[in-house]
Amino acid sequence: MKRYEAVARAIGERIEQGLYRVGDRLPSIRRLCQEFQVSVSTAQEAYRRLEEAGAVEARPRSGYFVAPRVTPSVLPRVSRPARRPLDVSQWDQVLELVGESPDQDRLLRLGRGIPDLDAATLRPLLRRLSTLHRRAGAQDLNYDSLAGSLELRRQIARLATASGCLLHPDDLLVTTGCQEALSLSLRTLAGPGDVVAVDSPSFYGTMQILKAQGLKALEIPTDPQTGISLAALELALEQWPVRAIQITPTCNNPLGYTMPETRKRALVALAQRFDVAIVEDDIYGDLAFTTPRPRTIKSFDDDGRVLLCSSFSKTLVPGLRVGWIAPGRYRDQVLHMKYVSTGASATLPQLAVAEFIAHGHYERHLREMVRQYQRQRDIMLGWVARDFPQGTGVSYPQGGFLLWLELPGEVDCVRLNARLAEERLHIAPGSLFSASGKYRHCLRLNYAAALTGAVEAAVKRVGEIAASLLVEHAGMPE
Amino acid sequence: MKRYEAVARAIGERIEQGLYRVGDRLPSIRRLCQEFQVSVSTAQEAYRRLEEAGAVEARPRSGYFVAPRVTPSVLPRVSRPARRPLDVSQWDQVLELVGESPDQDRLLRLGRGIPDLDAATLRPLLRRLSTLHRRAGAQDLNYDSLAGSLELRRQIARLATASGCLLHPDDLLVTTGCQEALSLSLRTLAGPGDVVAVDSPSFYGTMQILKAQGLKALEIPTDPQTGISLAALELALEQWPVRAIQITPTCNNPLGYTMPETRKRALVALAQRFDVAIVEDDIYGDLAFTTPRPRTIKSFDDDGRVLLCSSFSKTLVPGLRVGWIAPGRYRDQVLHMKYVSTGASATLPQLAVAEFIAHGHYERHLREMVRQYQRQRDIMLGWVARDFPQGTGVSYPQGGFLLWLELPGEVDCVRLNARLAEERLHIAPGSLFSASGKYRHCLRLNYAAALTGAVEAAVKRVGEIAASLLVEHAGMPE
Repeated sequence: MKRYEAVARAIGERIEQGLYRVGDRLPSIRRLCQEFQVSVSTAQEAYRRLEEAGAVEARPRSGYFVAPRVTPSVLPRVSRPARRPLDVSQWDQVLELVGESPDQDRLLRLGRGIPDLDAATLRPLLRRLSTLHRRAGAQDLNYDSLAGSLELRRQIARLATASGCLLHPDDLLVTTGCQEALSLSLRTLAGPGDVVAVDSPSFYGTMQILKAQGLKALEIPTDPQTGISLAALELALEQWPVRAIQITPTCNNPLGYTMPETRKRALVALAQRFDVAIVEDDIYGDLAFTTPRPRTIKSFDDDGRVLLCSSFSKTLVPGLRVGWIAPGRYRDQVLHMKYVSTGASATLPQLAVAEFIAHGHYERHLREMVRQYQRQRDIMLGWVARDFPQGTGVSYPQGGFLLWLELPGEVDCVRLNARLAEERLHIAPGSLFSASGKYRHCLRLNYAAALTGAVEAAVKRVGEIAASLLVEHAGMPE
Repeated sequence: MKRYEAVARAIGERIEQGLYRVGDRLPSIRRLCQEFQVSVSTAQEAYRRLEEAGAVEARPRSGYFVAPRVTPSVLPRVSRPARRPLDVSQWDQVLELVGESPDQDRLLRLGRGIPDLDAATLRPLLRRLSTLHRRAGAQDLNYDSLAGSLELRRQIARLATASGCLLHPDDLLVTTGCQEALSLSLRTLAGPGDVVAVDSPSFYGTMQILKAQGLKALEIPTDPQTGISLAALELALEQWPVRAIQITPTCNNPLGYTMPETRKRALVALAQRFDVAIVEDDIYGDLAFTTPRPRTIKSFDDDGRVLLCSSFSKTLVPGLRVGWIAPGRYRDQVLHMKYVSTGASATLPQLAVAEFIAHGHYERHLREMVRQYQRQRDIMLGWVARDFPQGTGVSYPQGGFLLWLELPGEVDCVRLNARLAEERLHIAPGSLFSASGKYRHCLRLNYAAALTGAVEAAVKRVGEIAASLLVEHAGMPE
């Protein structure tokens, strides 16, 4: 046996025995050299072999980690939504998820899109907010500029270079969260009865914009690893008068994939050929598990047809309601739409975020969060593998903090939620993510916050109840 | 000469001589008794006579004040807008008014709808904001409830009793300023091509909502003292398929009138007869110069067809973006529209306002502001009477801080603004307040902030330049 093989086997055995668990960081190259008395190249080769075998994952600038035991066979299937434009439904379930009714307050919501709010690296933001409000006079609470604070737009333009975008502060408008950015975009581009093509499953917040505006959703088959099917999209563009393509191509919600760059580029070319606008939701983009982060579709846009929408709700905190949009050639219309919708945005939250970024706190916070979310993804994958019925498909997120599960058989997650409510638990049923309530056998889980014993127990119960529904279903007469 | 006549004449002469100026408080009854050695009833009768003669104004609980020299003959005329639904234009001028382009920063804007931000009674609000932000953890910056903070909705419901409304906190939704409340309302009620009846002149922010949503404005003749013509509205409702009536009946922007209660009640009856909804903008309502404040149209609404919209942008500060809506029977639709437009609102500003109200600071602040705005209205009326061309019509606001001027002849206020720009001045041209750019010979002035010498000089220059345009026009060939 070669020396690197011996080292690889020793590490592999420790993983098998549970000495290192899924998501754990493995010894550094240097420590491996010391422990086994081998050269650097031998230690590297050992990890390379383990990586090839799928046991270990390399993360740039972080080291080697125990990989989750996922095989491609248990990924969710490529979606097969309806092949015609549909009216959007499912509002009642969205209301339930965002917890409008007061008696739902005590539910442990495993499915919401909320980041970890306990991170220590958020503290400088809280301090800036406090200082700005302590020093504020009422004149600081006047109407801000409609486009938003120039300081913040400068910082966003600077950050955007990391995703391959060259933006000028004047290209940007500050919004009330990403939700307003998406809403302004779709209202600018399309009116009642118009068709919007969307990836599928797709974020329920955007789907509900379509519903409110009387737009029809044309759901396009989507691969859980590479995103929207360009072939299916092309067919759809030929067949239907599509006014806009709405898509979340990076750290997708709910599937977690990032579209490869070549496919992003091809999507822009397709949009150009059919002269259709693209609304790109990049709200999770900065939480990608790779460095540098993936490029946006906007970065390939050479004629201003991409409206890039984002916010700090997933990377920092949702409650400041600071989002932004780079609306390309639609700037004037989107500015008008912003004026009539909410007017100028609140000034001080914008300044606090701008200063947080300017002092390097944002990038530091992101590094921490990406590390945490990647680790917790793996832990959650382990729990799901252990606690859910055999045959459960599960996504393999490339960023963000959301996991998508496809349950076997005909398990109905709306029914699952009804059962879970008795135990004060709640998941996001997959039907939210479809215009017509498809994906009822799917669900979304959040792994952002600390994965405590309570969360572990909760996930276990979801798996158990899902399994019981599966058995019930199997026993039902046809 | 009777004794009260002698006293009245003496006070009248002092006013003539400028010893007491427009808006000044006159001696109390008690001091009048002392000075002239007369009985209380004689002193009262003297003031009653002066009041009848229009020289003096009684204000409940405040005393007697020098009245502005306004006679009904110089009120603006009843508006005569187009008698058919129109598409809304004028967006470029709105942009100029709200000061989007950076080189406009140094303009002295005499026409914006901004309250006095230097009031000492705002300080407790700043302190609450500071304390809440100092104590806040990131968990306080999570998504709030979609309907808004219950504490704030409780306080708003309590305040609403002053305007005759019995509202439950569940009847209320918090919005991003009144602008979002109006926008949600109109988007809920009407779609592209639909007709909305509006008072005329009408707030440009609402007109621009109509433009953005593809709605048509049916402008109804409006009396500068009693509001929208019910006869004209009735005819319009018979003739056109009106989907909603949008109106600012209390402390109207820009005209300053308050519709009498009987007319408000009649408007509700009319809306019921034609089964049409009413969107009531009450943003200036709490700034009425009478105690108690006038009732809202909503207070006469017995079948939930009135959507009452307001905010704290004119009564407190605009930059917190805290507004609200009581959407009546449209609650569920408006809540959905709110979710898709901006999601939940920021929590801490809501809590700060709620605590400010709960501790009695809001009512104290209002009392101060109402006193100040009424005094400054009179001073501004005096300046306008002195500095503007003869024949200038001027509104007589019953609340708020906005004055509407109707210039004689064909003076074009868009042209006036171009001239004013050379001197770094800016007014709100009347054409903003019409769908089709009518009222170009009108303008709006703001008298909220301290009326300093600089403001007096600025108003004087506006008057002089207006006069010069009038002369130029008179000299032009037909």
